Amino acid sequence: MYPIGATTFVEVAGLSDRLDGASRPGHFRGVATVVAKLLNIFTPERAFFGQKDAAQVAVLREMVRDLQFGVQVDVCPIVREPDGLAMSSRNRNLSVEQRRQALALSQALLAVQRKAQSGEHESSKLLAEVLEVLAGEAGVQVDYCCIVDPDTLEDIPNVDRGALVAVAARVGTTRLIDNLLL
Amino acid sequence: MYPIGATTFVEVAGLSDRLDGASRPGHFRGVATVVAKLLNIFTPERAFFGQKDAAQVAVLREMVRDLQFGVQVDVCPIVREPDGLAMSSRNRNLSVEQRRQALALSQALLAVQRKAQSGEHESSKLLAEVLEVLAGEAGVQVDYCCIVDPDTLEDIPNVDRGALVAVAARVGTTRLIDNLLL
Repeated sequence: MYPIGATTFVEVAGLSDRLDGASRPGHFRGVATVVAKLLNIFTPERAFFGQKDAAQVAVLREMVRDLQFGVQVDVCPIVREPDGLAMSSRNRNLSVEQRRQALALSQALLAVQRKAQSGEHESSKLLAEVLEVLAGEAGVQVDYCCIVDPDTLEDIPNVDRGALVAVAARVGTTRLIDNLLL
Repeated sequence: MYPIGATTFVEVAGLSDRLDGASRPGHFRGVATVVAKLLNIFTPERAFFGQKDAAQVAVLREMVRDLQFGVQVDVCPIVREPDGLAMSSRNRNLSVEQRRQALALSQALLAVQRKAQSGEHESSKLLAEVLEVLAGEAGVQVDYCCIVDPDTLEDIPNVDRGALVAVAARVGTTRLIDNLLL
């Protein structure tokens, strides 16, 4: 995948600096570059990505569109444990107590969904709800929590036209992400 | 080719800052990006590029290799007018007098070839020969003149293992390039 001396990279400017890209500089450059290589090697008709990494989905959709890769991007829904925790290989790193604390992420998103369904469309008020639920769990350190346009990842003031509510937080040393499309 | 709002680019780091890339910042980023799009749209088995833009050849070879595009890169030799001037659409911008002055580029390269064939392999001495010929033509302003590895575009101290002699110069307002593989 990485020929000796390889220096070429693919950058989706703008998008790559938002959400997880803001916390992890260079991360999405690496993702875009390796996915471009995989698409060139396998030339698939369809490529499947998980909605759980919503920023990755936005970056790769944009790359495929901009560079005109002949592939259909399919996004697979988040799969959750029975109690709501988004499935992730990282969950195995959580202690029993952390596993319980981590539930705050999905519970915060559910709280926002209820509030939005009850008529609250203002992003600042919905975000306050997320932060309130997360603040109720001392073991959870919020990395980001935002309501953005799912394509541009830019903050939006209200959720009238569809919105992505995304959170990232550390539970102990484990960084977890979760999100919800309103 | 350029969807509204497109932000993705392909960068061949390092190579893109050498030769013409040094004189024209961002130029090879644009070249690499548009060629990546063309390769994705047409998925050709072979792609042909001209040796006259030797830096472009190096950048695109590296891009195709690094991103594993499934295409064979073929490089076409420089085509010259009967008197030696490398063919270019820009030649039509030259006045009769400038057309004569422009011959200094190919003549300088021929002088280097003769000197190398007579046993001189030291780059600094070969470059002195190029500059002497070019200096003999007042209408020619040298942009760059170098002896480099044709793959990495990095300066090399001698031409024992194959070398690219490349020149760029302005004749009036017209920027011309030419090169020779030793």
